[in-house]
Amino acid sequence: MSDIPTRVQINEEGPREGFQFEKGPIPTARKIELIDALSETGLNHIQVASFVNPARVPGWADADEVVAGFRRKPGVEYTALWLNLKGLQRAMAAGRLDIKGSFSLTASETFLKRNQQRTLDDNIRAAHETIRMYKEHGIPLERAGIMAAFGCNFEGEVPHQRVLDLIQALLDIGAEHGITPKVFSLADTMAWATPKSIRALVGKVRNRYPDLTLSLHLHDTRGMGIANAYAGLEMGVAIYDATVGGLGGCPFAAHKGAAGNVCTEDLVFMLDEMGIETGIDLDKLIEVAQLAEDIVGHPLPGSVKMGGSLKALRARLH
Amino acid sequence: MSDIPTRVQINEEGPREGFQFEKGPIPTARKIELIDALSETGLNHIQVASFVNPARVPGWADADEVVAGFRRKPGVEYTALWLNLKGLQRAMAAGRLDIKGSFSLTASETFLKRNQQRTLDDNIRAAHETIRMYKEHGIPLERAGIMAAFGCNFEGEVPHQRVLDLIQALLDIGAEHGITPKVFSLADTMAWATPKSIRALVGKVRNRYPDLTLSLHLHDTRGMGIANAYAGLEMGVAIYDATVGGLGGCPFAAHKGAAGNVCTEDLVFMLDEMGIETGIDLDKLIEVAQLAEDIVGHPLPGSVKMGGSLKALRARLH
Repeated sequence: MSDIPTRVQINEEGPREGFQFEKGPIPTARKIELIDALSETGLNHIQVASFVNPARVPGWADADEVVAGFRRKPGVEYTALWLNLKGLQRAMAAGRLDIKGSFSLTASETFLKRNQQRTLDDNIRAAHETIRMYKEHGIPLERAGIMAAFGCNFEGEVPHQRVLDLIQALLDIGAEHGITPKVFSLADTMAWATPKSIRALVGKVRNRYPDLTLSLHLHDTRGMGIANAYAGLEMGVAIYDATVGGLGGCPFAAHKGAAGNVCTEDLVFMLDEMGIETGIDLDKLIEVAQLAEDIVGHPLPGSVKMGGSLKALRARLH
Repeated sequence: MSDIPTRVQINEEGPREGFQFEKGPIPTARKIELIDALSETGLNHIQVASFVNPARVPGWADADEVVAGFRRKPGVEYTALWLNLKGLQRAMAAGRLDIKGSFSLTASETFLKRNQQRTLDDNIRAAHETIRMYKEHGIPLERAGIMAAFGCNFEGEVPHQRVLDLIQALLDIGAEHGITPKVFSLADTMAWATPKSIRALVGKVRNRYPDLTLSLHLHDTRGMGIANAYAGLEMGVAIYDATVGGLGGCPFAAHKGAAGNVCTEDLVFMLDEMGIETGIDLDKLIEVAQLAEDIVGHPLPGSVKMGGSLKALRARLH
């Protein structure tokens, strides 16, 4: 167990992920209310909005208003998602986001073709273009990522060797531009990972690239989110994306196939109980998860928001 | 990872646990429908009913009718729960259950006092009485258990030494009656366990009693169920109680504090993907989880019943 980190960094993606997914409409003021509440929990990284095409993602038609409206808390990084130059320009125009770049490759060519009508070569060319775009705007490039790193609904298992090759490709692409990303994210985009495959793939990546800092983006579609995070901890991974309440997923059959992220407060609960520091106040975060449920108007998947923290129970005992 | 078992035994407790918890009323025929459907999944152990006081547990007022009505499938053990001689006699009178005895101690005296107005000495006396009752009726005693083995809402953390002492007490109690239970169950009755505490406690128990066969009874109240089962697997535990769909819990705030068991199909999904045999057909089990949801009339916590198995996806790819 000696590889288990003593401190874990959580990147909260609940607002961006949740309001993108929810049918809504959800009032802008309530989106801002959620972000402001998250800012008070000790989280130091919150992805607050998605600057994407409102015709395709109506839930984020008000991204500019949301970003203009929340209160920046010192010490917290506020980021957003964009998929192209237009989105980036909107994010920069807001003038109050922490703009950082990332570039990624996708481990399944079938998925690329089906979802984006792109080949792997197109994907590599796009990564170069992305880097050029950030460099032109003087934006730091901190993160590189591999999507569908554990498996793909259109292709099945992703061979470990392919992931290793893609990491090398990301390193090579970065090097051409004089860039070395700080963090490499392995994303379980279609929820194929299990604790066993997390251990196997992360183990191989660590053996080949012992100096890379890895992060995990886990989905809970098949209930493995927390167990996968635990396997990641055992393999020394100390950075996780997560969403408060499990925003982005929903226990209703009507939302079938919803690929909810691993739930922030359930993850923080496990980390707290393992003695791993996060800087986050779990009981405050549980209140925010309950607020998130109120805002979206239906139950969210997280468990600790109902079961309660043990810290609260212990406090009553002593 | 060498301790991970190659085969896992799952004891399905969904019917008993679920219908005890649900507000209902649920028609007897539908309870029977669930049991019969479970019988077709490859599960070999199903707890079908609870013979308890109908005034206290109205959901099981029809236990006799349910037990009279389901179809016994060869190769499947059908058990029930009872808490006293009267319940046992009802279970025996049914004439079609696999009656096996168990005895247990509780690791928190505060919990005993609050819940049953008993001391630990009372608890030990009761274990002797339980054994005598089974011996008088010629019933095999196969299982011993420790309730609240990981923590207690009224007492906090349970010291590992106390659990070790209680295992010794169970062995001593059994020995006085010439009984050696086959399986020792550690129950996380109030959902205090985390992967870390599972590893720590199971490790100590195995060190002190290397020949005991352990089983885990896990609750998912704080979202740790699957991760805890995974930690149990890493420690070599090969027997788990579980409930289809996560019956006994519910993602609605109205059922706050529901201590749902770990979800059978989510557990089977993880085991399948780890290459661990269970004898259970996951896709059939997912259909039964959806049936369970229909029977109780609200969403149940399990995830794979919405996310789908990977086996089904792979079959479509090839």
